[in-house]
Amino acid sequence: MVSEDKPVSICRVHFDPDGVSIDVPTGTTLLEAAQRAGVPIDSVCGGAGRCGRCKVRVTGSVSVSGEEPSPESRSGKPRMVLACMGTITGDVNVHVPESSRIGIHQILEASEHVELKALSPLVRKVHLHLPKPTLEDNLSDLDRIRRSLLNAEDRSAKIGLPVLRTIPRVVREKDWEITLSIAETTVGKRIVKIEPGDTTDSMYGIAVDIGTTTVVLRLIDMVTGKTLTTESTYNKQIVCGEDVLTRIFYAEEHGTSTMTKLIIQTIDFLISEACEHASKLTGKKIRPTDILSASISGNPAMIHFFLMLDTSNMRLEPYIPVANLIPFVHADDIPLNINPNSLVYICPGRASYIGGDVLADVLASGMHLSKKLSLLIDVGTNGEVVLGNKDWMVCCSCSAGPAFEGGEVSCGMRAMQGAIDRISITRSGDVRFHTIGDVEPLGICGSGLIDLISELFVHDYIDRRGVLNPTASKRIRKLESGESAFYIAHRGKGKLVKDWGEQPTEILITDTDIQNILRTKAAIYSGCSVLLKSLEYDFEDVSQVIIAGGFGRYLNIRKAITIGLLPDIDLKKYRFIGNGALEGARLTLLSSQKRNEILDIYRKMTYFELSVSALFFEEFSSALFLPHTDIERFPSVKSFLNKEHHDER
Amino acid sequence: MVSEDKPVSICRVHFDPDGVSIDVPTGTTLLEAAQRAGVPIDSVCGGAGRCGRCKVRVTGSVSVSGEEPSPESRSGKPRMVLACMGTITGDVNVHVPESSRIGIHQILEASEHVELKALSPLVRKVHLHLPKPTLEDNLSDLDRIRRSLLNAEDRSAKIGLPVLRTIPRVVREKDWEITLSIAETTVGKRIVKIEPGDTTDSMYGIAVDIGTTTVVLRLIDMVTGKTLTTESTYNKQIVCGEDVLTRIFYAEEHGTSTMTKLIIQTIDFLISEACEHASKLTGKKIRPTDILSASISGNPAMIHFFLMLDTSNMRLEPYIPVANLIPFVHADDIPLNINPNSLVYICPGRASYIGGDVLADVLASGMHLSKKLSLLIDVGTNGEVVLGNKDWMVCCSCSAGPAFEGGEVSCGMRAMQGAIDRISITRSGDVRFHTIGDVEPLGICGSGLIDLISELFVHDYIDRRGVLNPTASKRIRKLESGESAFYIAHRGKGKLVKDWGEQPTEILITDTDIQNILRTKAAIYSGCSVLLKSLEYDFEDVSQVIIAGGFGRYLNIRKAITIGLLPDIDLKKYRFIGNGALEGARLTLLSSQKRNEILDIYRKMTYFELSVSALFFEEFSSALFLPHTDIERFPSVKSFLNKEHHDER
Ligand code: FES
Ligand code: FES
Repeated sequence: MVSEDKPVSICRVHFDPDGVSIDVPTGTTLLEAAQRAGVPIDSVCGGAGRCGRCKVRVTGSVSVSGEEPSPESRSGKPRMVLACMGTITGDVNVHVPESSRIGIHQILEASEHVELKALSPLVRKVHLHLPKPTLEDNLSDLDRIRRSLLNAEDRSAKIGLPVLRTIPRVVREKDWEITLSIAETTVGKRIVKIEPGDTTDSMYGIAVDIGTTTVVLRLIDMVTGKTLTTESTYNKQIVCGEDVLTRIFYAEEHGTSTMTKLIIQTIDFLISEACEHASKLTGKKIRPTDILSASISGNPAMIHFFLMLDTSNMRLEPYIPVANLIPFVHADDIPLNINPNSLVYICPGRASYIGGDVLADVLASGMHLSKKLSLLIDVGTNGEVVLGNKDWMVCCSCSAGPAFEGGEVSCGMRAMQGAIDRISITRSGDVRFHTIGDVEPLGICGSGLIDLISELFVHDYIDRRGVLNPTASKRIRKLESGESAFYIAHRGKGKLVKDWGEQPTEILITDTDIQNILRTKAAIYSGCSVLLKSLEYDFEDVSQVIIAGGFGRYLNIRKAITIGLLPDIDLKKYRFIGNGALEGARLTLLSSQKRNEILDIYRKMTYFELSVSALFFEEFSSALFLPHTDIERFPSVKSFLNKEHHDER
Repeated sequence: MVSEDKPVSICRVHFDPDGVSIDVPTGTTLLEAAQRAGVPIDSVCGGAGRCGRCKVRVTGSVSVSGEEPSPESRSGKPRMVLACMGTITGDVNVHVPESSRIGIHQILEASEHVELKALSPLVRKVHLHLPKPTLEDNLSDLDRIRRSLLNAEDRSAKIGLPVLRTIPRVVREKDWEITLSIAETTVGKRIVKIEPGDTTDSMYGIAVDIGTTTVVLRLIDMVTGKTLTTESTYNKQIVCGEDVLTRIFYAEEHGTSTMTKLIIQTIDFLISEACEHASKLTGKKIRPTDILSASISGNPAMIHFFLMLDTSNMRLEPYIPVANLIPFVHADDIPLNINPNSLVYICPGRASYIGGDVLADVLASGMHLSKKLSLLIDVGTNGEVVLGNKDWMVCCSCSAGPAFEGGEVSCGMRAMQGAIDRISITRSGDVRFHTIGDVEPLGICGSGLIDLISELFVHDYIDRRGVLNPTASKRIRKLESGESAFYIAHRGKGKLVKDWGEQPTEILITDTDIQNILRTKAAIYSGCSVLLKSLEYDFEDVSQVIIAGGFGRYLNIRKAITIGLLPDIDLKKYRFIGNGALEGARLTLLSSQKRNEILDIYRKMTYFELSVSALFFEEFSSALFLPHTDIERFPSVKSFLNKEHHDER
C-alpha cells in the first residue's frame, strides 16, 4: 500500500502463526499489511475501527492511528491493537489470534489445484512393439497395429486419413516399435498420433480459459498431470470492444471470422510462449505439435468466437446460442496451432449467458459432489450464480453490467497493470491504495471499487442511497455537471489498454459512477436471493458460498458484504476458488471422471431466466441501497453503523 | 465384323426367338452375327466347323462356306446349318434352338443391377419443423434440432464444426423448417448437412470404380436408388505408367501426391460431367455439393493413391498395404469435389493384391449368400480368384501379368477405341475382326487376344505349345529376330493413348507374344486349380463360375476354354457379372445391409499366397500348354482336336 501524501521508508512485518513476512512502507496499517501478505484478518467494518473484529497482538513499532507511540510500543512488549488502527512505523511482529481470522486461509490453498486420484487424460499413449510382417503374417500396417492393442475398445479406435497416411513410414522408422496416442471421447476412441519408438514419457496437453479480457493457458505434462507453466495475456479481441456485447455487434458487422482470428492468435501466442518456457524448464524440446489434447472453457460468446459460430442470436431475445454442449472438435477445423489431429474438448455451457466457464467453476468447486447446499457466484461481467447440491442445480445470469470489469464507471478499468485493486481510507481521511504491478495508478478495478464504496460508506462520505455528502470530506467536490465526485488520486502516465480519447488527469468517483456500481451489486445480490427464494431457501440455509473468477481472489469479502454485494453470513462459509474456469478445463483435460461429472452438471442444471421474473425486479430495487433496504438482512453491518446517521429509512 | 479383304454390302439378320435384328456386311458368318447381336450360340470348336454345337435353322440368303448357294437357300425354305459355317449373302432369318444356346443370356441381364429390397443409404434425409425458441423454451439451436429427432441414435449423431457453423443461419432461413442429412457409419451416425426447408426429394450419391485404366462413376438418386447417369473416362494416372507396378515406382520417385492429384482430377471430372448430364436429364440443378455420399471400389494400389497412402511396401515382399479395412474418410480430407462434409466409404480389400474391387465383385455376384460352391474370376491385370460360399472364402491373386490388359504383347492394347476385341479366322484363312468404336484397328485387347489364340490353335496355325507353324498359312512369316509372326491387319492411323515411340504399321502376333499370353492364361487357370485343390475340391464341384470385370463381358467363354484359360465345365455354369466393382460400390452406397455383407465377406475371406505355393508352380507349368498338358481336363476341346495333329504329347 502506498500513501500518496507522505514520504515513506520500508519496514518488515512478520505474521504468526502464519510465519509470513512482508516489507511495507511506513504508514501502512497492520490490516493492510495482513491483506497484502495474504493473512486473512476479519474486518467487518472495513477497517473503520468500529467493529472490533481485527484485534491482533503486536510487538514492535506500531502507532495507533493519529497517536504518539505508546511506552509498550517502545518497550517491545506485546499488546493488543485493532489491526485497522495500527499504523506501522518500523519493524513489527504480529500474532493473529484464531478469533480474528476470516477462516478462508485453507481455501486459498485448495483453490490451487483439485487433486485427482487417477489420471485418465483426454489422450493416452500406448507403446507397442509390433511383430515384423512376413508372407505368412501379412496383415496390413493398420491391422497389425490394431491386433497388438490389448483393449478391445482401443482396437476399434477410429483413425482419420491424415494419421493413417503417416503409418507406413512411422512403423518402419524404429523397427516396428511405435507409440500410439489414443483420444477418448464421448463418442468412442480415436487414434490421433502415431510416433516411432517409445515416446510414452512425453505427452502434453493444454487447459485454456478464454476470458473476455484475459486468456490463461496451462501447459500440462499429461504423463504426470503436472502443470509445467501457466501463461496469460490480454484477449486480442479487446481492440474490437471491451465487453461481450460490443464484440457481438462487431462480429455482426465485420464477420465472426475476425473475432475467431483474434482469439486464435491470442491462444497460439500463449502456446508458443508456454512451449518455450516449458522447454527451458524441462530441458526437453516441446513443440506445439507435441500438444495432443486441449480443453477449453469460456463464456458462450468467447466459445462461439473461438469456434467461429454465429453469436448474433445470443444477444437478442430469446438469447439462443448455436450449441451449449459442443462436440469434440478437431484442432485443424479451428485451426489451432497444436497437433492438427488433436481433439479439442470444450467445457459445456448451459445457456447464452451461462457458459462452460461457469460449469467449470462448479466442477472445480466440487459443489456438485456435496449433499450440502452451495451457492456459487462468479462476479464477472454478468454475475453468474449457481445454487444447488449433488442432486440438483439452478443457475442464473444477473446481467450485472460491467461496473466491476471497468465499464460504466468513469475511473473504472480492468484488473490490469496500473489498476487500483485495494483501497482504504484512514480515519484522518487519507486514501491509501495498492495498484497492480505497483505502478502509478491509472484507474480502479472491481475489487478496488468494492473497497472504495465500502470505505466511503463506512466513513459516512456516502449515505445509504450512495449519494456523496459534499461536506463530509475536502476530497469531495462539485463537478461542472452538478454532481459530486470524490477525489482519489492523480492519474499516472501509464497507458490504458484501450485508448479512451483524452484521458482524465484525476481519478475521481462520481455520484453516477456509484449508482452504476450499486446497480451491479444489487443485480448480483438479488440474483442470489431470487434463486434461493424461488426454491424456498434462505441465505442461512446455504452451507457455503463459493466465489469464483480471477477477480474473486482479491475480493475483500467483508467489504463486499458491507456494500451488500454478498450476503451477510458467517465468513467461514465463504470460499474462494480462484480461476475455476481454468481449473475446470485442467480437470476435464486430465480426467474422464471429471468430463463425466461436468456432463452430469450440464444435465442437472436448470437455467432460471431472471429477466422474466417479477420477483427479481422487486429484489433488485430493494438491493439498490447500502447495504440493502432491509438492514436486518445485514446484521453485521447494522451493528457498527452510526444509527443516527445511516438508519434514515 | 469387317472382312478386310473384300468389298461388302449390308444385310439384315433376324434372330428368333430372341427377336433381335442386326445389320452386318455380306461375308459375315451367322455365328459372328449372333455374337455381335448378343445372341449366345454355343461354339465349342471356336467356329471351326468341328464341334457341331452351333446348329441353327435359317431362312434366307446364307451360303455354306466356300460352296455355291443351295436350292433351299434360293427357295427360302428353312434348313439347318452350322452357324460358324454359314456366310451371310443377303437378308436372313435365324432360329436358334435351345440346344445350341450357351445359356448365359439371363445372366447378362442380371449383371445390370442387383435388386435391393429396401434402401438404407449411407446418408439419409430427415425433414423437421422445429418449434420457434422462446424465453421459456430457449434450447440452443443444436439441442432444438436434436430434441426434434425421433430416433435416439439420430439424436446422439455426431456433428463436425463446419456443419455446426451453418446451423444458426439455416434454421432461421425458412422459419425453422430444415432438412438434416444423417450419415450412418460403422462408428455411429453423423450429421453431414443441414439445409433450410424440405429437401428430402433431392439427395445424391456417387459410386465409383477406380480402375487402373478406366474410372467409372455412377451418379445415383439416393431417394429412389436409381442411377441417373454413368460416366467413365481414362484414369489420368496413365501418363505415369500403364500398370500398377510402374505407377508404384513412379510414386516412390515423384511422391504419392502426384498420383493422388491425378486420380482426384479424374473423379472430379466425372463428377462435373455427371452433374451436368443428370441436371439435363432431371431438369433439376444438381451441383457437386449436393452429393452427400460416395462409395469407392478399386484395387488396393488405386485406393492407396486415392487416399494418398504410401504404396511402396505393397510392391515388396511381404507385400503390405497400409490398410485393408479403410475407415470412413471425410471428403475434404482427400479432398474430393463433393460436399466437403460428406463421408466417403471405401469398399474393404483383403490384401495388397486383393482389393475392394474384388470384394465388391463378390458382393455383386451374391456368391457370399449361396450355399453352393462358387468360383469368381476377375480377369484383370493380376487375375484375382475367389472360391467359396456363404460360410467361407479363399482368395488369391495369380500375378497373371498384363497380357490381357495390353502389356507384354507387341500388338496388345487396352480395351479402348481402335482395339480389336473380337477376331475370327475363316476356313479359307481370312481374318475377320471387330474394333471398339468401329474404327480402323490400332491393336488387340484382351478378348481379341483370347479369340486370336483360340483361332490360331483351332486352325492348327499354332501347336499345343503355342508355336507358330510357318507353313500353315501365308500370313505367317519369319521376322528379322528369327521368330515367326502371324499377320492380322495393317494399323489404322488412330493414336494410341500411350506414345509407344515409332508405332508399327502392321498388327502382328509373334511367338514371344503368344508365350506371354500363355503364361497369363496359365497363371489364372492354375490359380483357380490350386485354390480348389488346396481345399480338396475339383472344378466339377463348382456350381458356378462368375466372370467379373468390364473385360469379362466381351470374353468369349468357349474360346477362353479352348485355350485353357477357363476350366472346361458346363457352359451353363458360367455367369458374367460385368463391372462387379462398380456394382458393389453402388450396393454399399445404397444399403447398410450390403455394407454389413461386404464387411462379412472381408472377415470371412482368407488370403492364399500363391507365390509361396509349390503346387502353384507345378500347376502353372502344366497349364502352359494349349489347352493344358493334361488334355483330359478339357474333354470338349479334346473331342474336336485333330488327333493325329494335336495329340503329340
Ligand atoms: S475495527 Fe478494525 S476492522 Fe473493524
Ligand atoms: S461347329 Fe460351329 S462352332 Fe463348332
